[in-house]
Amino acid sequence: MSDVLGADTTLADLPLRDDLRGRSPYGAPQLDVSVRLNTNENPYPPPPELVADVTAAVQEAAADLHRYPDRDATALRADLAAYLTEATGVALATENVWAANGSNEVLQQILQAFGGPGRTALGFEPSYSMHPILSAGTRTDWLPAPRREDFSLDGAEAARLVAEKRPDVVFVTSPNNPTGQSIAPEDLLAILEAAPGVVVVDEAYAEFSAQPSAVELIERFPAKVIVSRTMSKAFAFAGGRLGYLAAAPAMIEALLLVRLPYHLSAVTQAAARAALRHAEATLGSVRALIDERERVVAALTELGFTPAPSDANFVLFGRFADAHRAWQRYLDSDVLIRDVGIPGHLRVTIGTPAENDAFLAASKDVLEEIAR
Amino acid sequence: MSDVLGADTTLADLPLRDDLRGRSPYGAPQLDVSVRLNTNENPYPPPPELVADVTAAVQEAAADLHRYPDRDATALRADLAAYLTEATGVALATENVWAANGSNEVLQQILQAFGGPGRTALGFEPSYSMHPILSAGTRTDWLPAPRREDFSLDGAEAARLVAEKRPDVVFVTSPNNPTGQSIAPEDLLAILEAAPGVVVVDEAYAEFSAQPSAVELIERFPAKVIVSRTMSKAFAFAGGRLGYLAAAPAMIEALLLVRLPYHLSAVTQAAARAALRHAEATLGSVRALIDERERVVAALTELGFTPAPSDANFVLFGRFADAHRAWQRYLDSDVLIRDVGIPGHLRVTIGTPAENDAFLAASKDVLEEIAR
Repeated sequence: MSDVLGADTTLADLPLRDDLRGRSPYGAPQLDVSVRLNTNENPYPPPPELVADVTAAVQEAAADLHRYPDRDATALRADLAAYLTEATGVALATENVWAANGSNEVLQQILQAFGGPGRTALGFEPSYSMHPILSAGTRTDWLPAPRREDFSLDGAEAARLVAEKRPDVVFVTSPNNPTGQSIAPEDLLAILEAAPGVVVVDEAYAEFSAQPSAVELIERFPAKVIVSRTMSKAFAFAGGRLGYLAAAPAMIEALLLVRLPYHLSAVTQAAARAALRHAEATLGSVRALIDERERVVAALTELGFTPAPSDANFVLFGRFADAHRAWQRYLDSDVLIRDVGIPGHLRVTIGTPAENDAFLAASKDVLEEIAR
Repeated sequence: MSDVLGADTTLADLPLRDDLRGRSPYGAPQLDVSVRLNTNENPYPPPPELVADVTAAVQEAAADLHRYPDRDATALRADLAAYLTEATGVALATENVWAANGSNEVLQQILQAFGGPGRTALGFEPSYSMHPILSAGTRTDWLPAPRREDFSLDGAEAARLVAEKRPDVVFVTSPNNPTGQSIAPEDLLAILEAAPGVVVVDEAYAEFSAQPSAVELIERFPAKVIVSRTMSKAFAFAGGRLGYLAAAPAMIEALLLVRLPYHLSAVTQAAARAALRHAEATLGSVRALIDERERVVAALTELGFTPAPSDANFVLFGRFADAHRAWQRYLDSDVLIRDVGIPGHLRVTIGTPAENDAFLAASKDVLEEIAR
């Protein structure tokens, strides 16, 4: 008998929803290793001037912590609109932008407004595994649609499936996690034309891609397109938890109906605004990471692996007879990468040159061990 | 035609869920007035040493912002457990505590795990208006149950209703917002014994009350009782958005199945831990606020109003022939209080002595104007 209060009661004793029974919490293992290349973080710490600016901004906000934050996060949304306008060349206003605690919360709000019981969401798998989980969490029926054998998207087939299944929400992840490719603009157009409902273009890794952003399509499809983004990846702000989206103003009005009031803390708003002021410096690492990605892809190919083409800061590669065993072998070498559940494949985040060297050295060992 | 991208599209053009059509976003008006007594904030700003400590903690966390935060917020939950243990005398461990971005998110997670489509939640109205809104947001059918004419709870009738309706989730708010009274221990026991499912005791205002906390009941009802709390009120941390709960460990395992991964930012975790280190100083204002509450209640009574007895940092009072007109009249005097939608009544938050004086002076004016 544990001495923790109530510890003799188990999950099985609780009146949990039936659809949750037997499930496990989502999340990659958080392990203490030398080389962490498993959650697509930016490996470069924030520059000292960003840390100083975040600290000063929070100090100012802290004096008013007894008051609720701006419920509509207007100043932060204005800053995000200015950043996206600069990054994409499409003029966006504060009214076009919404923000929440990570893009997961943004996506959950979209499903609460446009999905839910009796409605469906469709995505092209393998893709970001939170899309079906968030759909389940909002009781939206999930419709998995396939990708080609090489993980690329067959645009014509995708549009045909969307026209046939008529999902209320379509997820298009570009670049796609965990496979790395962006969607071709003509394929996205075909999906948008076929879709009866909302199309969420999840651009979490857009800063690493040369493809144009789907924000260009808001003008033509204002009642359909939502572009979600995050500060967790290129922006090196994973710990700050700031996801956002761009869409027509009415889309944001819809999300206001389901958002929790005061969902974004005064501290988060202040810290994110400070980080955005250093966008240029932070995004300076993007070019270096793209170069490293190309180096890792070339080296993996040379070793005899088959990396999928990537537009992002990670690479899916194979083939392994037993991917989970290979994942453990990397971990034994103090290199944590990700087993995303695709048979024969693992996903590695692009790190610093030294981290990538450690990963490539481990890759060579893994290959030799498998060959033995 | 607006020059904002997509602004010609309206909410009516979107494939919004039918149950959201015609709704308005939740939230009290955020207005720029001299005396803000509308959202039950603590009127005393954080002491300088708390601001300094929060700033130092965030500075340390900011150096690692490129990494995801501890997904399980273990250190913060340990600190919250230590605080609650100290405050209630009931020994709680880290495994007994869960935290999220405000108690709204905590309550939403509870409803995702134990409510949802085909399930029901019951509350005793008038009470915290987010309970039915969160129920609607998770598609949990809401069962309103009555309070007595004087807003007190009829324990026997409450238990009878719970036994009859068999709700999956019962909300008991103690002290009750917006009416102010705590539930009597024997009434809570009767409800717990009658309840077939989960009973959420929402203790957002517990620090202002002399009643024992329901955490005492976790040992006896581990599969039923969840005690939710917040740092927004007595703790003067509304801007930091930190809600939490205490329950049996299995309850927290259930919430892990529905929580968004990395829902609590590294900055929020660091700032909340720093604020908790100053609990004694912050909570020093509680005694002063209770004294002021008694002064305000006495003064309102003397003026001829009928304040409801309060165990919290606010007072519901009446009667007004037209409460909304009276609310506007207060606002014209630069005093923002809350029209909570109870006919004939308004709710005022207890502020600093000067703010309360301004409120009482305005009350006198409102009365005289009504008498004219």
